[in-house]
Amino acid sequence: MQSAPNPKNRLAVVLLSGGLDSATALAAARRDGFQAITLAIDYGQRHRVELDAAALVSRQLGAIEHRLVTLDLRAIGGSALTADIAVPKNRSEKAIGDGVPITYVPARNLIFLSIATGLAEVVGARDVFVGVNAIDYSGYPDCRPEFIESFARTANLGTRAGTDAIAGKGGGFSIRSPLAALGKAEIIRLGMKLGVDYSLTTSCYDPRSDSSPIPIACGTCDSCQLRRRGFAEAGVPDPTRYS
Amino acid sequence: MQSAPNPKNRLAVVLLSGGLDSATALAAARRDGFQAITLAIDYGQRHRVELDAAALVSRQLGAIEHRLVTLDLRAIGGSALTADIAVPKNRSEKAIGDGVPITYVPARNLIFLSIATGLAEVVGARDVFVGVNAIDYSGYPDCRPEFIESFARTANLGTRAGTDAIAGKGGGFSIRSPLAALGKAEIIRLGMKLGVDYSLTTSCYDPRSDSSPIPIACGTCDSCQLRRRGFAEAGVPDPTRYS
Repeated sequence: MQSAPNPKNRLAVVLLSGGLDSATALAAARRDGFQAITLAIDYGQRHRVELDAAALVSRQLGAIEHRLVTLDLRAIGGSALTADIAVPKNRSEKAIGDGVPITYVPARNLIFLSIATGLAEVVGARDVFVGVNAIDYSGYPDCRPEFIESFARTANLGTRAGTDAIAGKGGGFSIRSPLAALGKAEIIRLGMKLGVDYSLTTSCYDPRSDSSPIPIACGTCDSCQLRRRGFAEAGVPDPTRYS
Repeated sequence: MQSAPNPKNRLAVVLLSGGLDSATALAAARRDGFQAITLAIDYGQRHRVELDAAALVSRQLGAIEHRLVTLDLRAIGGSALTADIAVPKNRSEKAIGDGVPITYVPARNLIFLSIATGLAEVVGARDVFVGVNAIDYSGYPDCRPEFIESFARTANLGTRAGTDAIAGKGGGFSIRSPLAALGKAEIIRLGMKLGVDYSLTTSCYDPRSDSSPIPIACGTCDSCQLRRRGFAEAGVPDPTRYS
């Protein structure tokens, strides 16, 4: 499912959050010869500035179009990212790696991949890229390879394009996670090689805005800590502005 | 997956569209002893009046809470229900049963079930009801039993509650489609027995509003035709106001 048989000019939908991982996934899609339509979801996240970052990243990496879909997950709540629950700060490395964090948004990737599949069907794309990776799936169940594979089967059973493919007419959907096996430092090294401008990305769960389109990161939430360590381990200067 | 082992007072999330099928699915959930939280999705559908109907049906059938989640699928388009494409009228019975119609919304049930799963996880429900049935899945791939089963597996792999269940801690998600085997007339007979007030429901893809909360149905779109025939076959007076 991950190999790309020279898809020169083939269209892909790339889920883009404005963060480091999905920017690198977009760069990998471009490397593999895909024309990319990027998709960001405004789900009422407290770190909404990432939506501006997603639009900048989309342009920097040569996507042909950027779409924004609004979905009000605050009507569901249940996460520090969508409800009035404090984002944890200064947690130890052990605590960060242990269990599903409070920043888990129930069924988020299930929902986002479903919307991306709908968009792919409409625009005629059969490949959907997502930036899930080895770091994520220590904590987030919806980043694990078993989930991604099961989702692809379900998406093909639940769409016109997919059932046509099952009946032998045309290709079905592939869910591509080019970062699946990579740690944060490896993702950063790959992105640097592929020309990602990480100064345009934002990972912070609790950022502070000033006049710049890219906000100031808190430096202490789980996501900031993983990002900082990733740059340090990769031996790459971290372009993030921390407060 | 469909049997209900006396779930007295157990909580379920019921997807409610304001139409005839999902109203009956809600009545079946109540019959099976579930406390219901109903969920309607405002996805930019042209027949938005169905959202008012959903709220009325929720109350009539004793749901404990009704939630409305907004998702702008017009940003995706690709369907007569969300884009500027005409709703087909006066199609023959053969044409209605033949292939995926233009009113198909790409990946709609995949997306809606994903959101319902997210809500279920937040409120602590493990059962999600959906009104898909035998009539639908002649035309809509995302109503077929294979899809529903595959979705349930995926939902369990992609959520905290589901992976806890797989690890032996607590129960996982069940996707319940109590109408799966029923035709339209059988659904109506079941609903009448369970006390559904079908005058509160609306099925029309292209309704006209007046001062009443329930709109006037066109009578000629595919959905109106299936509804009319269903009432006729069930031998039940059709409470719908047609124009």
